[in-house]
Amino acid sequence: MMKRMALPPSNNLHPKVQNPLATAKQPNRTTSTNPFQLGTNNNKNQSKRRHSLTIRSSKSTQTPATQRPKDPQPPLVVVGSANADIYVEIDRLPREGETISAKNGQTLAGGKGANQAACGGKLSYPTYFVGQVGDDAHGKLITEALGSGGVHLNYVRNLSQVPTGHAVVMLQSDGQNSIIIVGGANMSCWPERLSDEDLEIVRNAGIVLLQREIPDSVNIQVAKAARSAGVPVILDAGGMDSPIPPQMLNFVDIFSPNETELARLTGMPTESFEQISEAVVKLHKMGVKQVLVKLGAKGSALFVEWEKPIKQSIISVKKVLDTTGAGDTFTAAFAVAMVEGMSKEECLKFAAAAASLCVQVKGAIPSMPDRKSVLDLLQSV
Amino acid sequence: MMKRMALPPSNNLHPKVQNPLATAKQPNRTTSTNPFQLGTNNNKNQSKRRHSLTIRSSKSTQTPATQRPKDPQPPLVVVGSANADIYVEIDRLPREGETISAKNGQTLAGGKGANQAACGGKLSYPTYFVGQVGDDAHGKLITEALGSGGVHLNYVRNLSQVPTGHAVVMLQSDGQNSIIIVGGANMSCWPERLSDEDLEIVRNAGIVLLQREIPDSVNIQVAKAARSAGVPVILDAGGMDSPIPPQMLNFVDIFSPNETELARLTGMPTESFEQISEAVVKLHKMGVKQVLVKLGAKGSALFVEWEKPIKQSIISVKKVLDTTGAGDTFTAAFAVAMVEGMSKEECLKFAAAAASLCVQVKGAIPSMPDRKSVLDLLQSV
Repeated sequence: MMKRMALPPSNNLHPKVQNPLATAKQPNRTTSTNPFQLGTNNNKNQSKRRHSLTIRSSKSTQTPATQRPKDPQPPLVVVGSANADIYVEIDRLPREGETISAKNGQTLAGGKGANQAACGGKLSYPTYFVGQVGDDAHGKLITEALGSGGVHLNYVRNLSQVPTGHAVVMLQSDGQNSIIIVGGANMSCWPERLSDEDLEIVRNAGIVLLQREIPDSVNIQVAKAARSAGVPVILDAGGMDSPIPPQMLNFVDIFSPNETELARLTGMPTESFEQISEAVVKLHKMGVKQVLVKLGAKGSALFVEWEKPIKQSIISVKKVLDTTGAGDTFTAAFAVAMVEGMSKEECLKFAAAAASLCVQVKGAIPSMPDRKSVLDLLQSV
Repeated sequence: MMKRMALPPSNNLHPKVQNPLATAKQPNRTTSTNPFQLGTNNNKNQSKRRHSLTIRSSKSTQTPATQRPKDPQPPLVVVGSANADIYVEIDRLPREGETISAKNGQTLAGGKGANQAACGGKLSYPTYFVGQVGDDAHGKLITEALGSGGVHLNYVRNLSQVPTGHAVVMLQSDGQNSIIIVGGANMSCWPERLSDEDLEIVRNAGIVLLQREIPDSVNIQVAKAARSAGVPVILDAGGMDSPIPPQMLNFVDIFSPNETELARLTGMPTESFEQISEAVVKLHKMGVKQVLVKLGAKGSALFVEWEKPIKQSIISVKKVLDTTGAGDTFTAAFAVAMVEGMSKEECLKFAAAAASLCVQVKGAIPSMPDRKSVLDLLQSV
């Protein structure tokens, strides 16, 4: 099976080098080769999500036939948050009115949206990030981190009136973290209604990846547009603690919580696999046909309604250095594998390998593996 | 007296426009016109601090006679800290392990060194900032803020191994601020011994301005080099709480604490003007001939040993909006006035006017006034 996962070169295009269409603002889609039985509320709608876009002649004629890829890849489109994560290492929290010195500090590009987009870029899959940053130093930090990772930024809005979202992460000696989140551009100044132009990239995507660090109303519009264009949507449950609006789940093909999120959203225990399965049934009843549960050291499992769950254990490593970004890496790698047409089992394994490489390096975006490392790991196990 | 303070145009040069030498890495100095009786431990040394540097012929010949300013101004050199000040507005501090949302957040260029340099630039006096930043987004924030304010950055070191200094300022609803300081590039990786090249700008300065947000050892070397070249040194007491090394005060011409710093450093009360005067006497005994005390709403006073103190009240404003950076503005404006040859009384008044304009605008660097505003205010009162 591992042999089947070593992708042929045509699936392994680097968007910047080999795919001249990948930087075009309106990426072209071919018929989806996604093998997933994407769940909807009404399975009869499935044919709607198999439409194809013909390559625009104006673009095609601009591209010399020798350079034109045979099979342009419909991009991964990540709509979500971008954050400056400001880590400060302290002995204890300051009291009111007190000034203390940190032992260390570092500010890194983060946010679940940016993380997942960075992972797509790192895996050399054509990836667009759709999000908002402020016109400030933290905004530049994020766009530089994503841009240098090959992520397309044509749909990133720069706002002058709000700061880039940021989080102050106070790492304490006793292992406790206290966090102050500034929503900034992630949470404000989104258009009340996204325009057709805004949603064009979503409709032309091969897959859309969402999380819960931007307003639900934006996510709902994006998921709705994707669904109506037959584009599969994965919603990572990470981010806000608030209940998920019921209509949201109707437009989502795969919902991906971790154990804690699953417990919180269903109000059910998730200690054992049996309990997890029961909690997932509740999510199925809420409208999601497929649930991808991240179980930390216990691996992951994909639950498709009425089917037997597919389990994937972790690919164990000698030393776990830092799990930051591992969940984002898992979800994004799964999405990349899915849009590339791997089987469900292969997708889980590909994602597990990516996450396993991620936890061996410090940081979120800096720790995300490139495609070669993932494929090498998969062939070695 | 206000008439005398309206400077003639030759004293009002904009360094970027009219002084082609100001951007040279080795600024030229003419005989100091500073009227201050600069205090030293030995007044006989004063002649040493009146030396003049002839304009280098190679530079002079490169400058067309029509463009060459008659009297190139020896620059204000600010050696000190540069910080990213990360303000987050919260209802209360987070507890251990807790994640909370801020109501608002903003990250601004700051640090006492950068603030004071920005003030010099804003007042259109040739100003060099000597400091260290990390090779990161916060470093860019600072260099952009200073550069766009006309401050020369030839002596700013970019370090790859440490972050730019930053401070997380947690503004709470009850008016309390809790602050976490990351020293970063301000506090580490300074050369153990500053090279002659590093110190050249200090020796060629018209005046040197220091604070206490970089290691004392750096300040001592700078002050020593300035003293040996006859360059007056002002040390702002703001920054670290630690006692000032005794040798430091020997190389400082003017020491400038606020009431709180004066009380802490002398261990004496500073409630009344009499108490302040007594505390200043203690500083005189520690080796500083001149003490410039900032008294907040009560104004300021310059104490010269064995002389009657000169008092300056604030120039009152309709509404104090934000006092951030007012102390830095006061000290830097005083230094600019001093290097420009104003009398002690004029220097105090010029500084008071600059501070008065500063408190009417939010932020530190954004609130610093330009020269015209200061002169206009001085003429209107």
